[in-house]
Amino acid sequence: MNNSFGRIFTLTSFGESHGAAVGGVIDGMPAGIEIDVNLIQQQLDRRRPGQSAVVTARDEKDRVELLSGIFEGKTTGQPIGFIVRNTDHHSADYEQMRHVMRPSHADFTYLQKYGIRDHRGGGRSSARETIARVVAGAFARQALQKLGIAVTAYTESIGELSMRDKTPDFSIIEDNPVRCADADTAAAMTELLKELKHEGDTVGGVIRCVVTGVPAGLGDPVFGKLQALLASAMMSINAAKGFEYGMGFEGATGRGSQLNDIFVTDPQTGRVRTLTNNSGGIQGGISNGEEICFRVAFKPIATLLTSQPTVTDTGEETVLKARGRHDPCAVPRAVPIVEAMAAMVLLDAWLMNRSTHI
Amino acid sequence: MNNSFGRIFTLTSFGESHGAAVGGVIDGMPAGIEIDVNLIQQQLDRRRPGQSAVVTARDEKDRVELLSGIFEGKTTGQPIGFIVRNTDHHSADYEQMRHVMRPSHADFTYLQKYGIRDHRGGGRSSARETIARVVAGAFARQALQKLGIAVTAYTESIGELSMRDKTPDFSIIEDNPVRCADADTAAAMTELLKELKHEGDTVGGVIRCVVTGVPAGLGDPVFGKLQALLASAMMSINAAKGFEYGMGFEGATGRGSQLNDIFVTDPQTGRVRTLTNNSGGIQGGISNGEEICFRVAFKPIATLLTSQPTVTDTGEETVLKARGRHDPCAVPRAVPIVEAMAAMVLLDAWLMNRSTHI
Amino acid sequence: MNNSFGRIFTLTSFGESHGAAVGGVIDGMPAGIEIDVNLIQQQLDRRRPGQSAVVTARDEKDRVELLSGIFEGKTTGQPIGFIVRNTDHHSADYEQMRHVMRPSHADFTYLQKYGIRDHRGGGRSSARETIARVVAGAFARQALQKLGIAVTAYTESIGELSMRDKTPDFSIIEDNPVRCADADTAAAMTELLKELKHEGDTVGGVIRCVVTGVPAGLGDPVFGKLQALLASAMMSINAAKGFEYGMGFEGATGRGSQLNDIFVTDPQTGRVRTLTNNSGGIQGGISNGEEICFRVAFKPIATLLTSQPTVTDTGEETVLKARGRHDPCAVPRAVPIVEAMAAMVLLDAWLMNRSTHI
Amino acid sequence: MNNSFGRIFTLTSFGESHGAAVGGVIDGMPAGIEIDVNLIQQQLDRRRPGQSAVVTARDEKDRVELLSGIFEGKTTGQPIGFIVRNTDHHSADYEQMRHVMRPSHADFTYLQKYGIRDHRGGGRSSARETIARVVAGAFARQALQKLGIAVTAYTESIGELSMRDKTPDFSIIEDNPVRCADADTAAAMTELLKELKHEGDTVGGVIRCVVTGVPAGLGDPVFGKLQALLASAMMSINAAKGFEYGMGFEGATGRGSQLNDIFVTDPQTGRVRTLTNNSGGIQGGISNGEEICFRVAFKPIATLLTSQPTVTDTGEETVLKARGRHDPCAVPRAVPIVEAMAAMVLLDAWLMNRSTHI
Repeated sequence: MNNSFGRIFTLTSFGESHGAAVGGVIDGMPAGIEIDVNLIQQQLDRRRPGQSAVVTARDEKDRVELLSGIFEGKTTGQPIGFIVRNTDHHSADYEQMRHVMRPSHADFTYLQKYGIRDHRGGGRSSARETIARVVAGAFARQALQKLGIAVTAYTESIGELSMRDKTPDFSIIEDNPVRCADADTAAAMTELLKELKHEGDTVGGVIRCVVTGVPAGLGDPVFGKLQALLASAMMSINAAKGFEYGMGFEGATGRGSQLNDIFVTDPQTGRVRTLTNNSGGIQGGISNGEEICFRVAFKPIATLLTSQPTVTDTGEETVLKARGRHDPCAVPRAVPIVEAMAAMVLLDAWLMNRSTHI
Repeated sequence: MNNSFGRIFTLTSFGESHGAAVGGVIDGMPAGIEIDVNLIQQQLDRRRPGQSAVVTARDEKDRVELLSGIFEGKTTGQPIGFIVRNTDHHSADYEQMRHVMRPSHADFTYLQKYGIRDHRGGGRSSARETIARVVAGAFARQALQKLGIAVTAYTESIGELSMRDKTPDFSIIEDNPVRCADADTAAAMTELLKELKHEGDTVGGVIRCVVTGVPAGLGDPVFGKLQALLASAMMSINAAKGFEYGMGFEGATGRGSQLNDIFVTDPQTGRVRTLTNNSGGIQGGISNGEEICFRVAFKPIATLLTSQPTVTDTGEETVLKARGRHDPCAVPRAVPIVEAMAAMVLLDAWLMNRSTHI
Repeated sequence: MNNSFGRIFTLTSFGESHGAAVGGVIDGMPAGIEIDVNLIQQQLDRRRPGQSAVVTARDEKDRVELLSGIFEGKTTGQPIGFIVRNTDHHSADYEQMRHVMRPSHADFTYLQKYGIRDHRGGGRSSARETIARVVAGAFARQALQKLGIAVTAYTESIGELSMRDKTPDFSIIEDNPVRCADADTAAAMTELLKELKHEGDTVGGVIRCVVTGVPAGLGDPVFGKLQALLASAMMSINAAKGFEYGMGFEGATGRGSQLNDIFVTDPQTGRVRTLTNNSGGIQGGISNGEEICFRVAFKPIATLLTSQPTVTDTGEETVLKARGRHDPCAVPRAVPIVEAMAAMVLLDAWLMNRSTHI
Repeated sequence: MNNSFGRIFTLTSFGESHGAAVGGVIDGMPAGIEIDVNLIQQQLDRRRPGQSAVVTARDEKDRVELLSGIFEGKTTGQPIGFIVRNTDHHSADYEQMRHVMRPSHADFTYLQKYGIRDHRGGGRSSARETIARVVAGAFARQALQKLGIAVTAYTESIGELSMRDKTPDFSIIEDNPVRCADADTAAAMTELLKELKHEGDTVGGVIRCVVTGVPAGLGDPVFGKLQALLASAMMSINAAKGFEYGMGFEGATGRGSQLNDIFVTDPQTGRVRTLTNNSGGIQGGISNGEEICFRVAFKPIATLLTSQPTVTDTGEETVLKARGRHDPCAVPRAVPIVEAMAAMVLLDAWLMNRSTHI
């Protein structure tokens, strides 16, 4: 079931970029939780194109229709079917693409694997598929909120511009078009994206995600380690090229004597804490009660507004020049998607953990 | 089923460091494949401690006993049960650890989650668990060999020492104790590990893995993307902190105009290839026929032979000084584990791909 | 994932009787198969109420809308989302049921389990849920047709009226309102149902299903035995109370010397066959190439148009008298559902069997 | 994963009749449960041949060795690996069977499916595989006992001899060699089996199973209905041909007005009960708090000690006459297997139900 994600709290998604709709089924949502539909739509709006000068101008609207599993405002424990209609079809724009293999896209591999592909806007390989993730994540968040768990992601770097050495200010993330948690870096990033948009070029970036309020005990060794579940979730997002948690790749260059997280007992609460958090809140695959933090690297969007050589589906040389509206960077819009996937993983791990004892 | 991995070709593993045995069940192994038991033992020997001056001196032997699923030298399509006895018990060495929470180990989280833990040698959280992975990987490799697919990993960096800018020489990997694919770097790494062993300190590193001979079409969008399966596999290995494929985190700093992989038709074979391989052999979650390459970052081993402050299971302060034999670096012995997990993922993806058409 | 069925070819379903829609996602449908949408609608029409005097008069229409996974008339290998709107709401009819626990319905158990329930028309426990099964089954059938596999079910008995001793005539099944494969028995059954409808009573029955054209080799020991998959499929249908295959319960009374299926080689084809088929086409969990046949027992519909004592959700005594339109027997409309579930199991087993060899 | 059973509490089994061992891995066993190893062995002893005059005289011993997941007498929440060595090999007895397809056995289908088979004693298709089920079931029982849930099965009928109309006396089940819950019927059954053993013939029978102490709320619609899980479990047992619960096939002949289970409030406990239990303790796929009861039909054992015509693996005619020790009826030894599978299903459903609410 390759279009399903999760073990107990699960999402099964469907839909192509230019088909009738994208949507999904959420199964395993706990019963009796009051759902604020506005919060779901709000998350979809964060993902939506056309939010600012640096993201594409399409106004897809993306209104979610919830079809089941909610009764008089509360979840019933039954599966939640939902759809978001595709209303902004410019399929004709894509007719020229029918036989062209776009570089670093999925055109070639889909055709090789399936022998058939919906070429319009990338079909199933379009990032429009992430709508279903955002909806499911918005449900997971509402359950997590009751558990005191909060998920926050932000743009840490775009190209060479990075706020990695600065303290993130979560309160400003939604106030700037690049969703950076540092105002100065945000301004520089915004400037860069405008330039790239003008040039028809694109750039990659890194999203950092922090989960607070996680109790110790979530995650299941040995193949259900929390970091393995998170890595699988993040690496399934379009354009993601890398995942690290806690000290990450930097930890590979250091010494144990520098990087071990020393345990201490908080004299006030009596709770065992770690002095540092190089573990990123996870030890042995299980949350230790500290903040969970991880990073996801995204490549530059492959669609350029400049000419590129490529081949057709019969292997003949051609030149591709994309038309239409395209983002210079996927990262700002990927922030709510990273959050959604993280929320799904955390709720699933919380539910799974309930079966540890009778 | 958190101790199971895979969809069609699966491993279910069990066993603690100081219990009776570690082992597992391989399900979904195709029928009729001739199995060379020596090749399995050979992989186990690569994982085994005591191979050189820079890895621990325990001689665990680790003889695998195959219990089912093979008949007259060939796989039967039935599950393959196997065990490796634990013969080198020094459980008394660990009695002092019963109540001590080792920093950056899984002691604390296992106790929080389960309310009980086998403290001897880390119990289930010991890297001894990876024996099962190596056995299953050795079966997968023998199937992949028939398909022309080969998996090779090597130590790319240890601490600050890296061969990233050099061309790997696969032929020397097994000839040096650190499993590096460059002779000079290997010598420097070996020197470093000797020093660290003397100091009682540890260091992290990075493993790079290359898979050749992969046909286009393996991997299943959207949650079964090949990179998501690989990431999940790698991040489930003890001490892994990061995963990237293709251009990885570096790709996050670059431009689309530099990083797109341009398609060309090979005039001799007529086969569509890419001029570069920033995609790491995977596009849209599906292999494109190029080499698959990815990196895994490992943190320094948490067990130091120097004193560290910590707490007991009742939260009282204490000081820990490990005794016994411990590696200064996990990376050389992790090389066959990375290969094993990669082999399992690839075979599973190959088998899953068979159901794409009728 | 309790609302998902299957391993490779899977259905995830959603929807309540009086919600916005019922629907689902089909994953694992092979690529490149031409789909006749009329055949899907035709199966839905068979399931639909209001088809004759002996089934309920609601005209729900039940038009399926396919939302994804099909491109220019062919499957693409991507998930197929679909919905069927609920258009015939008489929710007010059900307001009186908000607090009443209907005998032998799921009202009490849903409330106990979830603490909340959609009382309108049984909510998720309504047989309207089977719409999703029929749609998925109609896709499976079109794939099976290409493989030469055909699934046919019919009403074998209603109450005491049975055609068990008669030879089924498949050609007349759709020509009589009870979907019986014997004309005389069909006439008697129809008469019985008219009487019961008049009395406001209901009756049970048995459906027999035959699958032809199945190659030897489908089904996976030991827990994926073909009969286990079929039993799980059938017993998940509303009102099903029993499953048997081949000789079934009758076989429990006989001797091995009478019931063993003797192998012979067909002199013309050279193919090994069995002289009898007490095995029902399955031996050791794997199809043997003979016809697969099984039976499913259905209880009488629990909704009566007579008065019944019961309790409210607070445990107080009350009297229930259902209003509206209700079938006297579920069996005729369950015929296409049994076929749909069987088709899904067979296609899934066929696809799974592809991974047996490399 | 066709050799795995369950969702949270799972068994993965391996092993052939004449290989080195049979065994398995139990995953998802809750932590902190004191395990009485004698109770596990006791269940294995119930399954073991050679218990009386009417079952085969092999003394296989079947000592279970637990390899992991238990620490100082308690479960740790980690997977429990176990093996039972095969010690009573008479593989030479089976050499004559290498090319013979035994009627109504799995020889033919395994060969068709896998192209290779272990012919010794049926290989993987041998009922010896059920050892793993009995071990896993014995763990499940010990968890269920803490939850007040008890599983009891008994032989209800053998051939035409049935105690269906008598009240079962659970206290005598283990006191007679056929595990019947009625003394007179047990005596007649014992007599019949002696005769059949003398004749070299075999006979089928029915096992009834009762589960008490089940709280309302277990089971998960729509495909995880408790009866679907039980049916799948039972139909995966060798020689099982039918499953029914509650009123079962008899219910198919009756009227709703007779068979509905009327709800009443117990004046003493205030608990809602049903006056009758035609539902078999399950409504809408969810337990309602009443006794769960179901029946499983078993065919006669296919191995006869008389001559039977059959074919070889090349399709040539031959005559088979089994030698050695064989039971005249599988049913008495299947009683602990039915119990084991039911215990696994119930514990799994209990654990799954924990995730219904946060």
